[in-house]
Amino acid sequence: MNYIGLDKLILEALSEDLGTGDITTESCIPAGAVSTGVFRAKMEGVFCGMAVLERVFKLVDPSVAVTAHIKDGDEVKYGDSIATVTGPSRSVLAGERVALNLVQHMSGVATATRKAVKAVEGTGCIIVDTRKMTPGLRVLEKYAVKAGGGNNHRFNLADGILIKDNHIVAAGGISEAIAAVRRNAPHTLRVEIEAETVAQVRECLAAGADIIMLDNMSVPDMRECVKLIAGRALTEASGNMGERDLREVAETGVNYISIGALTHSVTALDISLKFTK
Amino acid sequence: MNYIGLDKLILEALSEDLGTGDITTESCIPAGAVSTGVFRAKMEGVFCGMAVLERVFKLVDPSVAVTAHIKDGDEVKYGDSIATVTGPSRSVLAGERVALNLVQHMSGVATATRKAVKAVEGTGCIIVDTRKMTPGLRVLEKYAVKAGGGNNHRFNLADGILIKDNHIVAAGGISEAIAAVRRNAPHTLRVEIEAETVAQVRECLAAGADIIMLDNMSVPDMRECVKLIAGRALTEASGNMGERDLREVAETGVNYISIGALTHSVTALDISLKFTK
Amino acid sequence: MNYIGLDKLILEALSEDLGTGDITTESCIPAGAVSTGVFRAKMEGVFCGMAVLERVFKLVDPSVAVTAHIKDGDEVKYGDSIATVTGPSRSVLAGERVALNLVQHMSGVATATRKAVKAVEGTGCIIVDTRKMTPGLRVLEKYAVKAGGGNNHRFNLADGILIKDNHIVAAGGISEAIAAVRRNAPHTLRVEIEAETVAQVRECLAAGADIIMLDNMSVPDMRECVKLIAGRALTEASGNMGERDLREVAETGVNYISIGALTHSVTALDISLKFTK
Amino acid sequence: MNYIGLDKLILEALSEDLGTGDITTESCIPAGAVSTGVFRAKMEGVFCGMAVLERVFKLVDPSVAVTAHIKDGDEVKYGDSIATVTGPSRSVLAGERVALNLVQHMSGVATATRKAVKAVEGTGCIIVDTRKMTPGLRVLEKYAVKAGGGNNHRFNLADGILIKDNHIVAAGGISEAIAAVRRNAPHTLRVEIEAETVAQVRECLAAGADIIMLDNMSVPDMRECVKLIAGRALTEASGNMGERDLREVAETGVNYISIGALTHSVTALDISLKFTK
Amino acid sequence: MNYIGLDKLILEALSEDLGTGDITTESCIPAGAVSTGVFRAKMEGVFCGMAVLERVFKLVDPSVAVTAHIKDGDEVKYGDSIATVTGPSRSVLAGERVALNLVQHMSGVATATRKAVKAVEGTGCIIVDTRKMTPGLRVLEKYAVKAGGGNNHRFNLADGILIKDNHIVAAGGISEAIAAVRRNAPHTLRVEIEAETVAQVRECLAAGADIIMLDNMSVPDMRECVKLIAGRALTEASGNMGERDLREVAETGVNYISIGALTHSVTALDISLKFTK
Amino acid sequence: MNYIGLDKLILEALSEDLGTGDITTESCIPAGAVSTGVFRAKMEGVFCGMAVLERVFKLVDPSVAVTAHIKDGDEVKYGDSIATVTGPSRSVLAGERVALNLVQHMSGVATATRKAVKAVEGTGCIIVDTRKMTPGLRVLEKYAVKAGGGNNHRFNLADGILIKDNHIVAAGGISEAIAAVRRNAPHTLRVEIEAETVAQVRECLAAGADIIMLDNMSVPDMRECVKLIAGRALTEASGNMGERDLREVAETGVNYISIGALTHSVTALDISLKFTK
Repeated sequence: MNYIGLDKLILEALSEDLGTGDITTESCIPAGAVSTGVFRAKMEGVFCGMAVLERVFKLVDPSVAVTAHIKDGDEVKYGDSIATVTGPSRSVLAGERVALNLVQHMSGVATATRKAVKAVEGTGCIIVDTRKMTPGLRVLEKYAVKAGGGNNHRFNLADGILIKDNHIVAAGGISEAIAAVRRNAPHTLRVEIEAETVAQVRECLAAGADIIMLDNMSVPDMRECVKLIAGRALTEASGNMGERDLREVAETGVNYISIGALTHSVTALDISLKFTK
Repeated sequence: MNYIGLDKLILEALSEDLGTGDITTESCIPAGAVSTGVFRAKMEGVFCGMAVLERVFKLVDPSVAVTAHIKDGDEVKYGDSIATVTGPSRSVLAGERVALNLVQHMSGVATATRKAVKAVEGTGCIIVDTRKMTPGLRVLEKYAVKAGGGNNHRFNLADGILIKDNHIVAAGGISEAIAAVRRNAPHTLRVEIEAETVAQVRECLAAGADIIMLDNMSVPDMRECVKLIAGRALTEASGNMGERDLREVAETGVNYISIGALTHSVTALDISLKFTK
Repeated sequence: MNYIGLDKLILEALSEDLGTGDITTESCIPAGAVSTGVFRAKMEGVFCGMAVLERVFKLVDPSVAVTAHIKDGDEVKYGDSIATVTGPSRSVLAGERVALNLVQHMSGVATATRKAVKAVEGTGCIIVDTRKMTPGLRVLEKYAVKAGGGNNHRFNLADGILIKDNHIVAAGGISEAIAAVRRNAPHTLRVEIEAETVAQVRECLAAGADIIMLDNMSVPDMRECVKLIAGRALTEASGNMGERDLREVAETGVNYISIGALTHSVTALDISLKFTK
Repeated sequence: MNYIGLDKLILEALSEDLGTGDITTESCIPAGAVSTGVFRAKMEGVFCGMAVLERVFKLVDPSVAVTAHIKDGDEVKYGDSIATVTGPSRSVLAGERVALNLVQHMSGVATATRKAVKAVEGTGCIIVDTRKMTPGLRVLEKYAVKAGGGNNHRFNLADGILIKDNHIVAAGGISEAIAAVRRNAPHTLRVEIEAETVAQVRECLAAGADIIMLDNMSVPDMRECVKLIAGRALTEASGNMGERDLREVAETGVNYISIGALTHSVTALDISLKFTK
Repeated sequence: MNYIGLDKLILEALSEDLGTGDITTESCIPAGAVSTGVFRAKMEGVFCGMAVLERVFKLVDPSVAVTAHIKDGDEVKYGDSIATVTGPSRSVLAGERVALNLVQHMSGVATATRKAVKAVEGTGCIIVDTRKMTPGLRVLEKYAVKAGGGNNHRFNLADGILIKDNHIVAAGGISEAIAAVRRNAPHTLRVEIEAETVAQVRECLAAGADIIMLDNMSVPDMRECVKLIAGRALTEASGNMGERDLREVAETGVNYISIGALTHSVTALDISLKFTK
Repeated sequence: MNYIGLDKLILEALSEDLGTGDITTESCIPAGAVSTGVFRAKMEGVFCGMAVLERVFKLVDPSVAVTAHIKDGDEVKYGDSIATVTGPSRSVLAGERVALNLVQHMSGVATATRKAVKAVEGTGCIIVDTRKMTPGLRVLEKYAVKAGGGNNHRFNLADGILIKDNHIVAAGGISEAIAAVRRNAPHTLRVEIEAETVAQVRECLAAGADIIMLDNMSVPDMRECVKLIAGRALTEASGNMGERDLREVAETGVNYISIGALTHSVTALDISLKFTK
């Protein structure tokens, strides 16, 4: 992870949550008080975000110590301890909510990804994410998808090529669109293109696409396309995959399944911080 | 909404998604091309975020025109048109994903809130949010809760008082904690305090709390507390309310129910942008 | 104090004062030279800003050591030593002016507040600030008011409610305005409203205001209002209080006096830094 | 004035004052309401800050119109109208406090400067400011000093040379210090040096100083120094000039008097905004 | 180009050059004066940066009008007019230096690129850039390379894969390194790897590299490698290409030549702004 | 150097180069691996930028150690070692390119400056820079000019006065322009003015200019002007000095030669980082 960007994100989250200072804590808890607390899972899932948790407290107050008990990608069940935090009580409370909000969200992404990965286990198919992400948190969500066992699709519009309907129409056809991109884009990028029918897949293949996205296809169509492509391009199943039978899709032989729901509809993994003294 | 902060958030989201520019679109679509697209709901729910949608395109390119067909808080069903956008194709595509990511998330929050509000309809109980929010998006999520028919709890640690376990222990007791806060905090803020038992509620009341949070209580306990308090303080039910029977809780007579799941576990409302020309 | 925002403020102040670097010092003083200097009061008053003073030098150069001799809120007289600073001469000089500009200003606020607090001593009346503050320095000025013995009014337009003339007229009356705010604002905030006459106070009381601001009233009117309210709402005297006889106002029995002049017309407390070696 | 920096300053001031939005106004005043208000002086002084006042409202909402009735540097008396503002009521209220806080402060600086300028009228002596300024507002305070009829000393440590005690000691003497600066600094800058005695002035002159600051000198000493220098260097009287008889100082023949109090101890010029409809 | 980032870059460049304002111009030129100036080439080369030139003046003052006479990528000779600018004289002068500094630099990059492109004309070989760029200006330099007729290599370490010596050693060999990257990186990226000998090229090919960089090879070695690879991977010649005979290299049949000198050692294209009234 | 601004510049350069993280390195090199590398000159020149080099790695990862072998301004020849860097391999690679891009550029500026300084050696003439600089890097380029043995002209439009054609025309003549600036600008700045003919020089002198820029003059004209001025003002030769015979110009007796090419057309000094283990 790029820590330079991470610090900025955490500092802004802390500013958002602290505002001009925690008036309740400043009133009740003396500056010298010290606390120890334990982060524990309150439900089953995949943990993700230890570096974020550590960094939140480091930025709030370098004298807070965080001891990790597990690592990113580990599965947890109700009651498992995740990390222990010790330091000035005011600092621990200042970082608590931001740490939890970030880590619960990341763990939610990792948990959903792990479930999808298990659904396709053994098929060789790889689960990847999309650009349907929470604004501002893309670096963390991409990281969490990998912690869950998936892999990442392009990060943004500049570092990956994906030719869609509108591009094809504007360029004057599939082969024209692919040619235009080949001329204009860095040669370090593969060319991916969306296809909705077997006929379109045929055209994409003829035009030399590197990756063909099988968009919203039925399982039989996908199976036919995979057979037709026969390894001459990579294949990626896409389109409301959060609601499809992933195993069935994977068994068509597609190389990748991309799932927006991994990141646009996240159920936070419930984690609590309890003070032990 | 405070547009100054909103612009910053949108510009950062656009930077995150555009990176150094949309290589596919720049390759395929000429600078002069113009498009019209329609945002449509792809599932049932409550729409929220029209000002954000408009602002995204305004910031991408002031020459893009957005026409709203509905307003925040309106209920939509599959296929309903939400807004029409017209302008340079490159600009429309540049704003598309960020607009959708933000608006789908806000609408998801509004939809979940509306559901909770309906569950307690007629009881006089008000649904409110918590600080269990997505870092960076708090202004938008708070706004969406209101669009859904709920109301907001404190925005951050500075603009509301909430005395919890740790504060009580550190201050030396409930009445000491309340007194400490009264001395130190602006008189413009009410004092809220958490209570887990009927006995604690009694103490809070005696100490002059303005709002008593009934934390993780059973329905009979809540009912007893409400009766005991008898309007001398406001009451707020809290603690995993996302998994409770909200109507049953509301019928105990509590004034507020605060629900973290409204914002920490959001199911995006599916919305698409289709080009009509 | 929220150190995250403080660092940003100090770094910007340092950039403003250093520009592209201290050309005189870089020319005359070798990089290796070390100095010790003492901050001393050059007039009588209340000191405030030790954490700011320490933080300025920490941000300029972590190797500069600051030893505090007094603490925020302490009264000083001409010649009293405040703190000793030791470190690379270039770093000490780089932080000097910014540290002084901030601390002299904060101490000026604390001094004016202390004077007001003493004027009302024994009456139970509390001196508070307003939003008539120096842009950019609000966190520090609010802090200094407390160091001087006063308390804070709302920090900004979002974290406190104050219904004024324009709001009442637009809402259609006092009770309508209060009702509108109750419906729309977080329940964690009290409702404060301005009243200029005894009749208005009566209306505010009937409408259930939590705090009634007695705006620009004569002492007899204030006395009558306090009697009328009889503890059913908090009372705050306001309006050019910097030029009023504060004791006389306090003796009317109002709970709070808010004074803009504490922060909009600050006389800096003169402090010097003298090098001892 | 450099508008690029000004916008940043105003936006931060607006964020500070608006927080997450004006809850009172949003509750009471409908989005469509329009207001007209007049800014009026509530005391005698020199107005300064029209461009700032206009810019605040432009940044809040470009549809707010500001009509100026006077210009920077004009003298006002109680009741004089300064500007009229018309636009959406919510926007006018959103900008009101920040506009007033900035303009009252700038006018306070201009008023104090004008008073000093008048005190030395006819002597040819020029009143200048110092680096004893409010952090973050230096551009505005420097501008206000000029509006008041004064002129500016260096803006920061990089764009002017001022050799003080510490520099002289470190460099090994007055002529060594001046030589070091001449070697190292841009030739576009004059060399100014502090002198506390007639003997030091003699040395500075011999070493070729461009400007000699007569620091904390008695009037007779200043007179002697001016005579001695005889136009071979510019002269600047300095040191608690806010408490000296400025005319007497000016009549010694010094070219400049620099006064820290112009900006470190500002009495705001009272200005109000009253709505006329 | 991504205008969001561009504005930030230009505003920072303007702040750097304007400091607290142009003291000479403010002194000599009245606020109302209007000027027209013409940008002209003072040497032969390829122009690049019209959008930047326009944007600089737009950000300084929206009332300045810029009329373009040529477009990016056009060749100019001594005396050719590039653009005409008309507006308030103060604004034109405020933007002049920043506009020139940016546009002269971009045109320098475009000119060097065009020269390289012409050297390989007809061979099918494509000239590309590297990451040896001017910090802060990468977006503009990448753009200028394309305006000169070249194409872009990866923008940064995240959006392209390039396996170098250190990576191979750490991974345990060429095939291990390629496999590790395939596992970990988005499938949207091609895998490029450096090879210094014919033997290494053989290994890279066997391991399935998409692009093989022929690093610092002699012309005969390059020729042998191209023949050996026979289209099964793309080839890129690299290593001090700024000092090689580009045509000779291109004629080995490599697909790409990457040249750091295009951007790390830029000779600005001399352009002047002369006022015509 | 002002480290506050430097950190911001380096962090932005790192963000630009790292994007969302180095995908190749993260795939191939384990988190625990440690490396040592040596920076070596690959051509003859003047090194500059050790503090920048150290700061880049400090900001990437405080555990990376940098040992300097030479200092800014030292001359290097092919193969000379500059610094050794040791630390986590991932961190060393993360900082490598940014460190090189900055230091090669700074060293390029220092090298060109040293060459010019040597050309005028013994004449007493001083080489200075201009505002023809790389946007964003002005602080570093100004520093490098000094490391090369030159000195700095004004940093920006605010901290130095330079009256040009347009200013003279607008002000109504040379003496009017000088008078206007004297009235308006801080007395801490010298007044510099451009002259293109002997006649203009005469006027500037009569009007009391502190520095006269001899703009684009022939050597005989410069010689005549220097004689005419006879030390009553400083003289600066300017105008395409990058292409003139500097010694010949210096021997006319001018005090300064300002050269834009030192910074607008920089040839990077080639430096490599090789890992030794």
